[in-house]
Amino acid sequence: MDGKKASRSKGVKTLGSGESALPSQSRRKFLASGAAVAGATVATGAGLVAARAEKIAVPPSNQEMGRPIDPKAYGMPSKYEAHVTRNRTDVFVNKQNWSDWSMTPLHQQVGIITPNGLFYERHHAGVPDIDPATHNLVIHGMVKQPLKFSMSDLMRYPSVSKFHFMECSGNGLTDWKAPKSKTVQQTHGLLGCAQWTGIPLSWLLDRVGLADGAKWLLFEGADGAAHARSIPIEKALADTLLVYGQNGEMLRPENGYPLRAFIPGWEGNVSVKWLRRIKVSDKPWHLRSETARYTDPMPEGKWRQFSMVMECKSVITNPSGGMQLHGPGLYEIQGFAWSGNGTIKAVDVTLDGGRTWQEAKLEDPVLDRCLTRFRFLWNWDGGPAKIASRAVDSTGYVQPTVADLEKTRAITGFVQHHNAIFPWSIAPSGEVANAIA
Amino acid sequence: MDGKKASRSKGVKTLGSGESALPSQSRRKFLASGAAVAGATVATGAGLVAARAEKIAVPPSNQEMGRPIDPKAYGMPSKYEAHVTRNRTDVFVNKQNWSDWSMTPLHQQVGIITPNGLFYERHHAGVPDIDPATHNLVIHGMVKQPLKFSMSDLMRYPSVSKFHFMECSGNGLTDWKAPKSKTVQQTHGLLGCAQWTGIPLSWLLDRVGLADGAKWLLFEGADGAAHARSIPIEKALADTLLVYGQNGEMLRPENGYPLRAFIPGWEGNVSVKWLRRIKVSDKPWHLRSETARYTDPMPEGKWRQFSMVMECKSVITNPSGGMQLHGPGLYEIQGFAWSGNGTIKAVDVTLDGGRTWQEAKLEDPVLDRCLTRFRFLWNWDGGPAKIASRAVDSTGYVQPTVADLEKTRAITGFVQHHNAIFPWSIAPSGEVANAIA
Repeated sequence: MDGKKASRSKGVKTLGSGESALPSQSRRKFLASGAAVAGATVATGAGLVAARAEKIAVPPSNQEMGRPIDPKAYGMPSKYEAHVTRNRTDVFVNKQNWSDWSMTPLHQQVGIITPNGLFYERHHAGVPDIDPATHNLVIHGMVKQPLKFSMSDLMRYPSVSKFHFMECSGNGLTDWKAPKSKTVQQTHGLLGCAQWTGIPLSWLLDRVGLADGAKWLLFEGADGAAHARSIPIEKALADTLLVYGQNGEMLRPENGYPLRAFIPGWEGNVSVKWLRRIKVSDKPWHLRSETARYTDPMPEGKWRQFSMVMECKSVITNPSGGMQLHGPGLYEIQGFAWSGNGTIKAVDVTLDGGRTWQEAKLEDPVLDRCLTRFRFLWNWDGGPAKIASRAVDSTGYVQPTVADLEKTRAITGFVQHHNAIFPWSIAPSGEVANAIA
Repeated sequence: MDGKKASRSKGVKTLGSGESALPSQSRRKFLASGAAVAGATVATGAGLVAARAEKIAVPPSNQEMGRPIDPKAYGMPSKYEAHVTRNRTDVFVNKQNWSDWSMTPLHQQVGIITPNGLFYERHHAGVPDIDPATHNLVIHGMVKQPLKFSMSDLMRYPSVSKFHFMECSGNGLTDWKAPKSKTVQQTHGLLGCAQWTGIPLSWLLDRVGLADGAKWLLFEGADGAAHARSIPIEKALADTLLVYGQNGEMLRPENGYPLRAFIPGWEGNVSVKWLRRIKVSDKPWHLRSETARYTDPMPEGKWRQFSMVMECKSVITNPSGGMQLHGPGLYEIQGFAWSGNGTIKAVDVTLDGGRTWQEAKLEDPVLDRCLTRFRFLWNWDGGPAKIASRAVDSTGYVQPTVADLEKTRAITGFVQHHNAIFPWSIAPSGEVANAIA
């Protein structure tokens, strides 16, 4: 991959930025290729004859009563979608303390909203079962008036709702220099996007009153690991939320029910779940999760702490590892781009392993620190190809290559914060595979 | 209620339109009122002492392992949220053919996304169980080339994802002139909002080729009622989608799995679910659902057909019928506004039954034909009040009163298309009740 930061090449612009997903010229070209698009059914005589003669089979579902409404059931997906689930990576689960994660099936997600039932999980000692009627949040330490808030206290505050991505700092840590994982669910699935509802932490800090010299906060969870992180006061006051809602309803247990921190654009583990305590101090705590974990090795042998911003990144989700293309023809390449530093300004796609790049179309709405879906129409000639995406955010930052990142960091072991360009290879057989190298 | 179309009064602007949900002045006022906001826990000595002494109880969930990940389960809400469900209105269910509906719990929804498990249902003969591997869509009639599409054919097309509301034309039909329903789930819950993913119908109509004189389409479902509607070709070509995705995943069975029409801004029943057939003609079909149902009585005794646009509307969801305010103090009034004709430009709130109006704050993003959440800070003095919202859309249309609507329509029986201003009364006891009159 050749993705120099300074020289983002301006390739041929295949898709326009107008209202339609496809400009009329591309669309006509696409629609003219019946076999590639509409598939075997259209191409066979049987399908056409049936339609032409209007001898349209009446399906069994038209001839019988359906299922009546279950008046008190929470709705579930069709039984035919039972294969769409979060996957756990059995290799890494620590059986002793159930420190574990499951991953979002990004290749099966449409749009930008990750359904709550498929939103990735990461926890260090399993999912606690918390009754909101007994849950409290205490704010104490260097404050003028320590206070305890019940959930009903918190939920009476005016609330805000914001669309943001959430990504684990360890997303992709198995796949830096050689393919270890097969699918995009495994390489990038510690990622999701939701509308989060809660209250700005600044309002509660106003209530308790910060003492002079207050510089850092401790967030601590009510889980078996008592997971905790140190947060600088500037970020807490700027845009940190305490959230109880996700995608229109209360948080799910595995994602922090009934209360979690939400720090927009930062690595997921600082958005402490099952939040029960915030302590104010003049310095960070240097917890295990800030020394032995969630740090970045640097070339000179030192480790970088508190590198919590998730920088600009993108990945192609369709086609992606483990999929199979069915012969030459037109395909729509799709994927996600996101940045912890702002909005996505552009995404380029390469079809030749980074030699040339072409601009993809971004789908509205393009929101601050939120997943943005990109689309790119590709006429595959059946030859070998190497596809990847490269995002640019509103600060001008261009998604780097692994080689770029290695200039300033040591890429050894399970390194966090992998936001490099990620390629998939397409074989003449149509097989799509992880091509990181 | 006094809500004249022509003279939308410009009341005091309580909330600003800046980045913060509350301007600093209002926010300080709100935050200063501890008892009203943070509730009894904060006001009692026990809570404060515990926090002050830092004798913070460690909850049981900190002292035990939580639930491990179920690697193949689709995630579900907490057991403590089991009361949040769609409600069926038992009064109206037709036991013979299971023509039925269930309603979205709007008062429990946060943000603008309606979770798929809580999205209202409406069907005429129960929910069919359709295997996507056997489902087809046929387009025939006045076309150059009738075609049959499998689901895999359709899902290989480039797709689009769009946020839009969906509302049943019968939403509110029980509550025009006197309170019949208690909660906002019952008065307005045939309403939801999602990100919908699918393909523009215009692309498929390009494929089959419209014959000269083609003017109307028939959409027919694969359910036991074979529900069908006639759709004018202009709307089909303009923005009608065939969708398979809702909020990031495949449609749920009760909402049309695996394929439905989606007609932005129009009444829900034209977005035919379980779509299996589109026939092209030069005139509408005048089906039972277009003569005996889904029509509007007019003052002169005639009935209006094909009135399918859902006009601008809003409702306060918090506080709303059946809720209880806990004494005088600051409350955040919240609700939804939406229009089938464009975006929401403004929402006004009245506290005195329509005598005076003040502008509410609209929460970003404000999207085309999508739910928009409004917020308004209210300092309740404990006296009787009558609250309501009034929306204005991007065409300049102002949400009318029932009296306004009655000037052009006959309000008798179960009348469709009730988009009038809807008031709730607040008693000095804090009880909130339906106040339509």
